[in-house]
Amino acid sequence: MKLAPELITETWLNSDAPISLKCLRGKVVCLFAFQMLCPGCVQYLVPQSKKAYDLFSGKGVKVLGLHTVFEHHQAMGIESLKAFIHEYRIEFPVGIDKPSEDGNPIPTTMGIYNMRGTPTTLLVDKKGYLRNNTFGHVDDMALGAEIAMLMSEPEYG
Amino acid sequence: MKLAPELITETWLNSDAPISLKCLRGKVVCLFAFQMLCPGCVQYLVPQSKKAYDLFSGKGVKVLGLHTVFEHHQAMGIESLKAFIHEYRIEFPVGIDKPSEDGNPIPTTMGIYNMRGTPTTLLVDKKGYLRNNTFGHVDDMALGAEIAMLMSEPEYG
Amino acid sequence: MKLAPELITETWLNSDAPISLKCLRGKVVCLFAFQMLCPGCVQYLVPQSKKAYDLFSGKGVKVLGLHTVFEHHQAMGIESLKAFIHEYRIEFPVGIDKPSEDGNPIPTTMGIYNMRGTPTTLLVDKKGYLRNNTFGHVDDMALGAEIAMLMSEPEYG
Amino acid sequence: MKLAPELITETWLNSDAPISLKCLRGKVVCLFAFQMLCPGCVQYLVPQSKKAYDLFSGKGVKVLGLHTVFEHHQAMGIESLKAFIHEYRIEFPVGIDKPSEDGNPIPTTMGIYNMRGTPTTLLVDKKGYLRNNTFGHVDDMALGAEIAMLMSEPEYG
Repeated sequence: MKLAPELITETWLNSDAPISLKCLRGKVVCLFAFQMLCPGCVQYLVPQSKKAYDLFSGKGVKVLGLHTVFEHHQAMGIESLKAFIHEYRIEFPVGIDKPSEDGNPIPTTMGIYNMRGTPTTLLVDKKGYLRNNTFGHVDDMALGAEIAMLMSEPEYG
Repeated sequence: MKLAPELITETWLNSDAPISLKCLRGKVVCLFAFQMLCPGCVQYLVPQSKKAYDLFSGKGVKVLGLHTVFEHHQAMGIESLKAFIHEYRIEFPVGIDKPSEDGNPIPTTMGIYNMRGTPTTLLVDKKGYLRNNTFGHVDDMALGAEIAMLMSEPEYG
Repeated sequence: MKLAPELITETWLNSDAPISLKCLRGKVVCLFAFQMLCPGCVQYLVPQSKKAYDLFSGKGVKVLGLHTVFEHHQAMGIESLKAFIHEYRIEFPVGIDKPSEDGNPIPTTMGIYNMRGTPTTLLVDKKGYLRNNTFGHVDDMALGAEIAMLMSEPEYG
Repeated sequence: MKLAPELITETWLNSDAPISLKCLRGKVVCLFAFQMLCPGCVQYLVPQSKKAYDLFSGKGVKVLGLHTVFEHHQAMGIESLKAFIHEYRIEFPVGIDKPSEDGNPIPTTMGIYNMRGTPTTLLVDKKGYLRNNTFGHVDDMALGAEIAMLMSEPEYG
């Protein structure tokens, strides 16, 4: 197990302040990486992330989105993302992954985590360890069980 | 019955030339009006329109999309729409409804047809008459039957 | 094209009298062959047949079910079928295909039509010709179009 | 919290021997009560129970079905249930709730647990306490989390 690398973002929507994994130590973090024009994300990840937020938020779990744009960059700017979040009624914080500076289409956090595409689901435990990093659709029942298992773990020791 | 008013568009994607209803006389026209960030359009209209295209195209039926943006205008510009069409594998022509000139958020064709929102499905018969103008989700079986009924009608007389 | 062979049934549910294709000349007949314990029938054919009944019944179309039991015969007797029809709110007539007399597990009508299994969808035109005999799931939009196409055909000539 | 009352069954399918909750102490028990001709059970509970079996079986969780017939008793006898289990590929043990002896249509275990109908989901913890008794559809993600939470609890103390 390794500590989950910090999220490197340009800005956060649905949040008054920037969010860091470091400040979430003690909570289970469920992070959904998506692109607003990725059909699989829209069909599966968005409803799943909203359900996770409804079920687990306020119970020691922090649900976050991360907009990891690696294609069609012009098409998925912040104005478009804001409208998307509004239309799909996403209430949890969504970070915008910081674009790479060297012309790499893969944004920074996506690169650090070696994500293979979108959707990707990350789970970070209370101690900050990365416990899951899955590309593609994760079954709802399996995800619920994994989150609950992490919830049941102690914060210290 | 009244003749279907002409489509007033800014441009067409997936088409080498502008498309007019007038030039489609003799064909059944199935026009799907949508917004790329409208969840109901993405979930129901897009797969339905693609299925209609696969089933009826080349059999005397012309399937068209019309991007009728009436909210979040900045978020759904042509670059975003092009990426959307690419990602959702839409192969039929999609017109961009011409914005109103007087600051009205409702675009021109949407206004002329008194569409109540998106998704909206329009059916135009071989003689150019508007035979259906429905707001909201239309059942697949009912739509298939309506299109076939129009296909069975004579072009003249 | 060949005339649709007559249905050979043991009895009919949801009908006061036996039903024959001969007496339905002039109508489009949409016949859904199923087994009550066939998962594909329950998931797809039953809702589809109910939708066809709601959409087309009373418009020159006769929707019928045919219970073609070719396996687990003891498990799908008439008492079980009656409960199934009640629970799934099937309102159209359902015939029970006549068991073969020679010990063949395939019932009589199923054999005559060379059905390959369940679900199977049959379409008979106004003149009594068999126009479709499809094993497996038929798409709703395609089925709606085929029924409408047959509805548009003349009864005579 | 109260101890889960023992299951009173006529027989078990998919099991060489009768199953009692008492003998499952130390395991989490996930019991799905259903009727084979209950549409909500077939559409939601059956796939959900199979998924729970695939995910959690062999990890300290025992998944069981209970056929609690309270209507159409003649239609859902053991022959029909066996065919249902075969067709729907149910691999976990399914008990047949013992019919009441006083002519009550509600079978014995269903009555003891005050189940309101089918589908009903019961969760029993490692110590034998009844932790959930829910009528109607339970969301997959919520169920996965509840099972995992019970898995994380100690067996003793």
